[in-house]
Amino acid sequence: MSELKITAEPGVPQILTERELDAPRELVYRAFTEPELLAQWLGPRKYTMTVDRYDLRDGGTWRYVHTDEEGNAWGFHGVFHGEPSSDGMVQTFEFEGAPGNVQMDTVTFESRGDRTIVRTNSVFQTVEARDAMVQSGMADGMSQGYERLDELLARDLKGRHDTDA
Amino acid sequence: MSELKITAEPGVPQILTERELDAPRELVYRAFTEPELLAQWLGPRKYTMTVDRYDLRDGGTWRYVHTDEEGNAWGFHGVFHGEPSSDGMVQTFEFEGAPGNVQMDTVTFESRGDRTIVRTNSVFQTVEARDAMVQSGMADGMSQGYERLDELLARDLKGRHDTDA
Repeated sequence: MSELKITAEPGVPQILTERELDAPRELVYRAFTEPELLAQWLGPRKYTMTVDRYDLRDGGTWRYVHTDEEGNAWGFHGVFHGEPSSDGMVQTFEFEGAPGNVQMDTVTFESRGDRTIVRTNSVFQTVEARDAMVQSGMADGMSQGYERLDELLARDLKGRHDTDA
Repeated sequence: MSELKITAEPGVPQILTERELDAPRELVYRAFTEPELLAQWLGPRKYTMTVDRYDLRDGGTWRYVHTDEEGNAWGFHGVFHGEPSSDGMVQTFEFEGAPGNVQMDTVTFESRGDRTIVRTNSVFQTVEARDAMVQSGMADGMSQGYERLDELLARDLKGRHDTDA
């Protein structure tokens, strides 16, 4: 299984990640951009995810909510910047529990044979905000999310895609 | 006259600026957020500025165009993130000549007696994009803009404000 690589340099308000997935780019892009698929993998296993809004276009907005077993809920929202495509997408990200803090995420998808390299680039307003994100357990959450995505791709999408082909 | 201070550390995709203005914070905030005032000072003297859209609210969009004497035009647009106030505002910024490049700007206004300190914090997706902005003549453009704002505040707003009081 692939490992999530995370780079967070001292003094730089940025986090870079890289993760390889065993599926072609078009399928990975679908898993990142179709709300019913996204809800099945994004974030730690302990949360249920509900996609409230997902208007995938330049200037469109998105919102989702993570809910735990006790019913505690955490909302997130943002705006797409530029036309999203299987090359990549740019979107802002705000945790509704910390108004005024905004991060900007650029995701790119690179084909490598039948596999795909997903890279994320998150910039923050301050190094302190970046550090808070690192300390929030982001690496574990993302790793678990990608493991769930591995499972989803293997179970549903890839099989179906191979059958279609 | 106040000097524009600019900080752009090597290897960090960020530009910080600071400028003092001889006017109270509420007036400075008006000059930053009322389109008919903004058009009178933002950017170098050689351009005419037209504000095409300016929807000052969380999620609202803005767009303006700089035009030179030969009729060449440069468009810029972005989205407000969070509720703008005289404490500050967060907005994304895209030059329409370089699609896919997005910067995120946080502006804050701090009262210092009857004067105001304006700070801007711009984060970029990459150090290369930050360097391109520095090399585009940003410092000159901002300095000229603030000098025009000094004049606007002295000529119109401040006098009118003193008369009102």
